[in-house]
Amino acid sequence: MAAPGQNVAVVVHRAGELRLENRPIPEPGPNEVLLRMHSVGICGSDVHYWQHGRIGDFVVKDPMVLGHEASGTVIKVGSGVTHLQPGDRVAIEPGVPREMDEFCKSGRYNLSPTIFFCATPPDDGNLCRYYKHSASYCYKLPDNVTFEEGALIEPLSVGIHACKRAGVTLGSKVFVSGSGPIGLVNVIVAKMMGAAVVVVTDLSASRLQKAKEVGADFTIQVKNETAQEVASKVESVLGCMPEITVECTGVQACIQAGIYATRSGGTLVLVGLGPEMVTVPIVNAAVREVDIRGIFRYCNTWPVAIALLASKRINVKPLVTHRFPLEKALEAFETTKRGEGVKVMLKCDPTDQSP
Amino acid sequence: MAAPGQNVAVVVHRAGELRLENRPIPEPGPNEVLLRMHSVGICGSDVHYWQHGRIGDFVVKDPMVLGHEASGTVIKVGSGVTHLQPGDRVAIEPGVPREMDEFCKSGRYNLSPTIFFCATPPDDGNLCRYYKHSASYCYKLPDNVTFEEGALIEPLSVGIHACKRAGVTLGSKVFVSGSGPIGLVNVIVAKMMGAAVVVVTDLSASRLQKAKEVGADFTIQVKNETAQEVASKVESVLGCMPEITVECTGVQACIQAGIYATRSGGTLVLVGLGPEMVTVPIVNAAVREVDIRGIFRYCNTWPVAIALLASKRINVKPLVTHRFPLEKALEAFETTKRGEGVKVMLKCDPTDQSP
Amino acid sequence: MAAPGQNVAVVVHRAGELRLENRPIPEPGPNEVLLRMHSVGICGSDVHYWQHGRIGDFVVKDPMVLGHEASGTVIKVGSGVTHLQPGDRVAIEPGVPREMDEFCKSGRYNLSPTIFFCATPPDDGNLCRYYKHSASYCYKLPDNVTFEEGALIEPLSVGIHACKRAGVTLGSKVFVSGSGPIGLVNVIVAKMMGAAVVVVTDLSASRLQKAKEVGADFTIQVKNETAQEVASKVESVLGCMPEITVECTGVQACIQAGIYATRSGGTLVLVGLGPEMVTVPIVNAAVREVDIRGIFRYCNTWPVAIALLASKRINVKPLVTHRFPLEKALEAFETTKRGEGVKVMLKCDPTDQSP
Amino acid sequence: MAAPGQNVAVVVHRAGELRLENRPIPEPGPNEVLLRMHSVGICGSDVHYWQHGRIGDFVVKDPMVLGHEASGTVIKVGSGVTHLQPGDRVAIEPGVPREMDEFCKSGRYNLSPTIFFCATPPDDGNLCRYYKHSASYCYKLPDNVTFEEGALIEPLSVGIHACKRAGVTLGSKVFVSGSGPIGLVNVIVAKMMGAAVVVVTDLSASRLQKAKEVGADFTIQVKNETAQEVASKVESVLGCMPEITVECTGVQACIQAGIYATRSGGTLVLVGLGPEMVTVPIVNAAVREVDIRGIFRYCNTWPVAIALLASKRINVKPLVTHRFPLEKALEAFETTKRGEGVKVMLKCDPTDQSP
Repeated sequence: MAAPGQNVAVVVHRAGELRLENRPIPEPGPNEVLLRMHSVGICGSDVHYWQHGRIGDFVVKDPMVLGHEASGTVIKVGSGVTHLQPGDRVAIEPGVPREMDEFCKSGRYNLSPTIFFCATPPDDGNLCRYYKHSASYCYKLPDNVTFEEGALIEPLSVGIHACKRAGVTLGSKVFVSGSGPIGLVNVIVAKMMGAAVVVVTDLSASRLQKAKEVGADFTIQVKNETAQEVASKVESVLGCMPEITVECTGVQACIQAGIYATRSGGTLVLVGLGPEMVTVPIVNAAVREVDIRGIFRYCNTWPVAIALLASKRINVKPLVTHRFPLEKALEAFETTKRGEGVKVMLKCDPTDQSP
Repeated sequence: MAAPGQNVAVVVHRAGELRLENRPIPEPGPNEVLLRMHSVGICGSDVHYWQHGRIGDFVVKDPMVLGHEASGTVIKVGSGVTHLQPGDRVAIEPGVPREMDEFCKSGRYNLSPTIFFCATPPDDGNLCRYYKHSASYCYKLPDNVTFEEGALIEPLSVGIHACKRAGVTLGSKVFVSGSGPIGLVNVIVAKMMGAAVVVVTDLSASRLQKAKEVGADFTIQVKNETAQEVASKVESVLGCMPEITVECTGVQACIQAGIYATRSGGTLVLVGLGPEMVTVPIVNAAVREVDIRGIFRYCNTWPVAIALLASKRINVKPLVTHRFPLEKALEAFETTKRGEGVKVMLKCDPTDQSP
Repeated sequence: MAAPGQNVAVVVHRAGELRLENRPIPEPGPNEVLLRMHSVGICGSDVHYWQHGRIGDFVVKDPMVLGHEASGTVIKVGSGVTHLQPGDRVAIEPGVPREMDEFCKSGRYNLSPTIFFCATPPDDGNLCRYYKHSASYCYKLPDNVTFEEGALIEPLSVGIHACKRAGVTLGSKVFVSGSGPIGLVNVIVAKMMGAAVVVVTDLSASRLQKAKEVGADFTIQVKNETAQEVASKVESVLGCMPEITVECTGVQACIQAGIYATRSGGTLVLVGLGPEMVTVPIVNAAVREVDIRGIFRYCNTWPVAIALLASKRINVKPLVTHRFPLEKALEAFETTKRGEGVKVMLKCDPTDQSP
Repeated sequence: MAAPGQNVAVVVHRAGELRLENRPIPEPGPNEVLLRMHSVGICGSDVHYWQHGRIGDFVVKDPMVLGHEASGTVIKVGSGVTHLQPGDRVAIEPGVPREMDEFCKSGRYNLSPTIFFCATPPDDGNLCRYYKHSASYCYKLPDNVTFEEGALIEPLSVGIHACKRAGVTLGSKVFVSGSGPIGLVNVIVAKMMGAAVVVVTDLSASRLQKAKEVGADFTIQVKNETAQEVASKVESVLGCMPEITVECTGVQACIQAGIYATRSGGTLVLVGLGPEMVTVPIVNAAVREVDIRGIFRYCNTWPVAIALLASKRINVKPLVTHRFPLEKALEAFETTKRGEGVKVMLKCDPTDQSP
């Protein structure tokens, strides 16, 4: 175990090889802050890098610190930082564009090819004790928002970005395909944005039960229906076709069902990622003006999420089902790999393991 | 009192002259339905026509039936009507464009100069026993939505249209200026659309208490502050400037405060109407790109409101504080004029006076 | 040949059977006008109904008058018509929603399932001498716009609707895939909307020559390149990836190329229709937030087109390469079938065969 | 006169005091470039600072270099600069946000309170020989775009931003109020964006003549008409009310006319700035849903303008009516003050005084 002052970090070296190591404590640059990390959630992508050493074209070539769902406390600020000071509790947005390119200038910085992103090779994540980050992408947490809520802003952001791109608004009828963590987050956000009704499909009854708990109005357990049959069931349950479908599985048949199910003039948002090439009824979508839009991570979501968490209108605390001290990170990763619970949280501050 | 089969109607003849009269039962045209009216709310404009015989350029020249917040039951359908049948319970959208002009074709039919509008001279309203209306503007109520909820869709629609034009969305910080019925409706809708925080100002502590009850996070009782001072208080209470201001008073000083208060890049929506000419700090708004947008009634709101009411996510029932049978309409108008309660509801069906 | 007063019409009876017949002169309803037809263009769909008796699910079961690219003169107006009078020269929008449903109310009447559409079974078209139409969908032509320009508004509208849905704006770099009539129209409209550069691909050098003539900045003759190779060539020619791709072929490989070619955050509009199911790199589009949007005909385009034609900023006259009197319609259809020229125009008024 | 290697600069010290001075040649930071300035236009605001020592709250307290309409050549790049290299010819966007705040992240960096802006106190401009600037806000000019065209992108940007905020699109009918340089630029841009018709008003016949030359379809010379009368004339000339009004004078009566003139559902953009408080018919705008939107400088316009200039679809060269070498800057300012010509250009590179 690392002594105080040391920077314990969870590092993936290659597929299957995860180590707890000591790393130097970094020095913040002029526009950066040094953080004492507090809570870091484990994401499916962290487990995937550990198990496979890659996700698509992103390959772990050099040892990389994992973690990107995180919050901590500012302990040092760079010379140019004005909006933060030591002692501030912050949530960390993991993606930081390195250049002010056309994407950044037009408000879509998530699409910038220059982006630094925690725990996407070759960029180190923040599952460690001490971590430096661009001050502009650290957001001060109000006193009534916990560190764990701060860390959960990251998965919440996927739902916020997806529902914004989908155009969810007052009275929307929404079909969420897939009831995993991202599906659940989309249910929560869609309801928060005023959706009148949300219906969720999944293969698993227990996952659908979770959807009910977070606010889904209807659930449909699918089995081996055709895409058109799923679409019909969705329409039947809602009493009309949904204006919006949020597809969270990436499975070809589900994307097809999403097209068939969505009302003319509506939007299908693709959140789940599956095989590179899929066969879809594109004419059906085109002639009914059903827009198909994907999302890449998120942008401009942290202030929104903090405002909501501070308002106490949204409750994400139940999502955390397991907690481990940073030293037991390997055990935490095994737990996550087994698919137990919903969200496993690592507690990086030995002096404060509270939520 | 009118015998069954007669069409009792509340008719304004000129300023100060309101009568209960018998009118012929109308015959629906091919695209119309005949309705047995059930519940009709009294609006401030109804009282205004009674008291003053006019609102702006709209003058009561011939006797006019009042009433435009209404619901009833279909009892006869025109030959071309396919989506309704006798027995259907419906909410009535009072504005019906007479021609498919450029405004209708582009989705802003409320702006059509050809519009028929209940109880706006010279168009008769529906505060009566039997009333015919365009079938396309009668919306079927689900079983779990009451007639009175159906009638309340009209005032609710003002809030929906205003908040949509304002761009209220997830995490918005909203300043509602004025805590009368329209202010309250905007508080309700803004929260439903995901606003993180809503602050309301008013002169009256009791009206602000109402705002609290329907969901306002903060209230500010104003007295004789300058417009800038009000703006400062709003910012102070929110911890930042609101992106959106919904101005519901029409008072010059409040419009000024709305401009000063709104964050750069935000939107000020003008709902309240006051004097034709007002003096405003237009440069302040312009150089901070604060958009100033008005609303004219509403469009495309009934389906949204019905979906929300059916979902039980919104509770407007407490707004009804008084009920009178249609025969006691004059008493009901006197009550409304005295400013008692929030919403006075007239019950037009002698066989069913339930909510 | 039909005598004056008779209503000669071009009628398809079944696949392969096209006849010149005499039909009764219709009587306009209260909101309709009776038109003496002047110029009607032949569209690929007219030829398709003649050759195949169907397009997708739309099957010619009863004899149907063809024609939907049309203009004429008002000779009689219904009792409720106020904006037109006999003698008015008008262009005809062929799609008329029969009910004011949710799609109409929200400005997307082209998506209304109730729509009447000229020469889509079972609705008769206007390739005849006398035709009645909803007055609201007849648009008065200024004196300086010819009947043939009026008839060409229909194909032009496809480009207007596509480029609007694509979000073409000042400085846009646009890739138009396919240089047939619809591709050409999109080139013209994209440039009119301020596109800085338009590049067009096609298999045919002569079609690409046409694209050059109507304003394309670059053309690429494709042969057997892969979808990625086409995308690379487009980027190479433009010096950057286009923000917008307008796909006008419906061919699977072209849709794929459209996805690969479009810049992150951009839009691919599908105008051409091909096989129902296509295999596409959906993940590539999704993670780069390239929106995929189809179009169904058009809405709200006639006033735009008339304003442009009246301003003389757009020249569509060269598109008309052949003219036939209505009596020689069968010859005109044979000419169109052979793919000669660009647009074949039928002249329906025996007393005025001018453009 | 400054010797080679010296950094001659045009410096305002206080109201009425303009000097040609020698300043140190700056050293670019890691993300900056050092530029040898080529062409810098004189703006009305430069003259205003010279004459009055202030504009509104912006006061010249310390000597300040003027100039913000500029282009030059990169002669040195900071260590972190990747997209530029010595020898690159660039146009300079004068506003550079210092922090990545909420406005920058959401694509509206012009509203960032942290913004650096050339020649707005206390920030130095670039009317000098050598100047350093953020590399991200220097845009490479294609070979076929001249330095002077590059410098003219700044005034052009005001028009682009205004017309974008106005929503000018294909077929728009646009009323531009005021035919000064900014009015002219809006005429040019509105036409480029597809406006069908543009009408311009001004007091001066000669200014209106300029509007005609740059593309206005109609002009109206106003004298002492009321606001309503001006609105009527605009409608009469266009044959309908314009959807869009771009107000470039800031005069109260003109803002009023802009409200009365704009079609219901349209947009009035305020570009000209006048007195802080103005009296306007706000109810007229509100109940017709005429949006009132201001602009603050511009954002995301340089790439658009460069693409247009490179495409040769826009000709701004005639706007330059006078040229002076940098050494004769005081004479150039006197010329500008006298209101001669349209745009006075200073040539900062003694070795290359070409356009």
